[in-house]
Amino acid sequence: MASTILGLDIGGANLKAATNTGRAASVPFALWKQPAQLAHALDELITPFADADELAVTMTGELCDCFETKRDGVRHIVSAVMNVSRSRPVRVWSTDGVFLNTNEAKEHYLKVAAANWHALATFVGGYTPRGVTLLIDIGSTTTDLIPILDGLPWSEGKTDTARMRLGELVYTGVRRTPATTFLGTTAAAEFFATVHDAHLLLGSVPEDAADTDTADGRPATRLHAHGRLSRMVGGDPVLTPEEDTQRLARSIVEQQRKLLHDRVAALIPRLREMRQAARHPRRYAVVSGSGEFLARQLLRDQPFVAFFDDMLSLTERLGPERSAAAPAYAVATLAAERPL
Amino acid sequence: MASTILGLDIGGANLKAATNTGRAASVPFALWKQPAQLAHALDELITPFADADELAVTMTGELCDCFETKRDGVRHIVSAVMNVSRSRPVRVWSTDGVFLNTNEAKEHYLKVAAANWHALATFVGGYTPRGVTLLIDIGSTTTDLIPILDGLPWSEGKTDTARMRLGELVYTGVRRTPATTFLGTTAAAEFFATVHDAHLLLGSVPEDAADTDTADGRPATRLHAHGRLSRMVGGDPVLTPEEDTQRLARSIVEQQRKLLHDRVAALIPRLREMRQAARHPRRYAVVSGSGEFLARQLLRDQPFVAFFDDMLSLTERLGPERSAAAPAYAVATLAAERPL
Repeated sequence: MASTILGLDIGGANLKAATNTGRAASVPFALWKQPAQLAHALDELITPFADADELAVTMTGELCDCFETKRDGVRHIVSAVMNVSRSRPVRVWSTDGVFLNTNEAKEHYLKVAAANWHALATFVGGYTPRGVTLLIDIGSTTTDLIPILDGLPWSEGKTDTARMRLGELVYTGVRRTPATTFLGTTAAAEFFATVHDAHLLLGSVPEDAADTDTADGRPATRLHAHGRLSRMVGGDPVLTPEEDTQRLARSIVEQQRKLLHDRVAALIPRLREMRQAARHPRRYAVVSGSGEFLARQLLRDQPFVAFFDDMLSLTERLGPERSAAAPAYAVATLAAERPL
Repeated sequence: MASTILGLDIGGANLKAATNTGRAASVPFALWKQPAQLAHALDELITPFADADELAVTMTGELCDCFETKRDGVRHIVSAVMNVSRSRPVRVWSTDGVFLNTNEAKEHYLKVAAANWHALATFVGGYTPRGVTLLIDIGSTTTDLIPILDGLPWSEGKTDTARMRLGELVYTGVRRTPATTFLGTTAAAEFFATVHDAHLLLGSVPEDAADTDTADGRPATRLHAHGRLSRMVGGDPVLTPEEDTQRLARSIVEQQRKLLHDRVAALIPRLREMRQAARHPRRYAVVSGSGEFLARQLLRDQPFVAFFDDMLSLTERLGPERSAAAPAYAVATLAAERPL
């Protein structure tokens, strides 16, 4: 009988779990605030998956500043998973494109640190085994732009630092990017609002009154998004007219869109070169993440319309539940394809 | 016998107290995290000043996003002071240049909200009763640039929103401004480091191993400043060479200096006009705040060397203790000059 594998994606703000059979769960968890609670939170998350035969792990949470170094972060995260594994085998995805056991993962911590983009790209490569693909994964905090050649990740950077420098990791997402990152010193240099508020106010993302994972802990509604943005101009929700916060929201979203446009455009020459080496000339864009809507908007612009032959949506392929935990589902699937 | 008056400056991150007789105390207090604890924290702060006959208050803490509106913030702060006043009279400075009683303050909340710059400028005006003065007060979070004509504040804006728009409130200070505000999307869009780390790394401010009021809660030392800045480039203190964080620190500080230079320079035409109306042609720059060192650096540049005849340091005038609580000392002094 085939094994059931539970994939885990352990980030700095969210824990995600998914089996290769398609069940998935996610939970917000502020790792940087309470690293000692990680094992407990993981245990709660994976208890419903007691039938899984083994665990496959990827992470980004090691970059949290509660850990003095990435080495410490990787060790802490791997140990937490082992603590809740109930003696099931644990494997960790590495940017070499293979799984490492837990000892290897702790030893070669830079190969497993922030490797979830690589797991996702390897998984996505399964959809486009021939041709040139650009994976545009816009998450809550960051955007991964991963070139894929004949189904294999073909990025130039492996570490966060290198990937940021090379434009493969763009440090903006649809949720957590602070408004001050875009507004700079033209507004309050405070963590009063995020780009999520801008998207909320412009109606690009749905309101959710139950969601209080916001800058001020008030609900993710347009009303409160207005309030949060009003503080960025030294106002408050009553004093500041909504046209002012609307203008601010448009400025934030336009800057975000321009940034992403420019970074994707900067990769086109590289994709064009890769095409010489590809087994097929077809060019795919694969969009994914909670910011998929933004990626779709981008791809309606030139030069992207002319360049890409096809667009694939991971959300459509996987459905909402699995795509919300896509890197976890990716490592589960990759592990199932690579039996122990 | 003359009254002893206790001045209080209630900010979002610090509580400051000073008497008109020159005793002073300050305590960090994260008002935005624990508004319900304000009265308790104030009580502890002012207990050593039991001999004071009355209380004079100014604030900026009402802008914290724990308060839904500035109105709520002012009411909460005024009530907290009343709770710990032990029936002593309480007065609140207003941007009309007069004190309000607590009922008036709650009613006319916009006149007392964020009025501490006005209290400080009115106090500073006492040093330069004839001529044109620019007060450059660089604090931990913000910088106030206040024109003073013949000893009276002569700013065009009164509210935070107006003052930001008019360049009289510049939202940067030497301590709390997030590094991401200056670095934008060229670095991690996270609250991993502040400009304080840049100043620490460049040796412009002293290390303090006991001070953990930093982005990651680790000490305010050069070593840990390097660690905090390393995360801004996706690295960690071990992986990232110190020359990289040094470069980052220089970029942050240069941008901050340029911003402040430009904003001060933009006020020169207005100061020149004011001079036509002044009772004396002399032009003063008064520097103050924990970022006074930065203001002094600025004033060594043109056009400031040519424009200002004289520079006064509030830190030198008041000494380190009172100047660290300057707005509190200012309201205490102003209240003593205006007996009930």
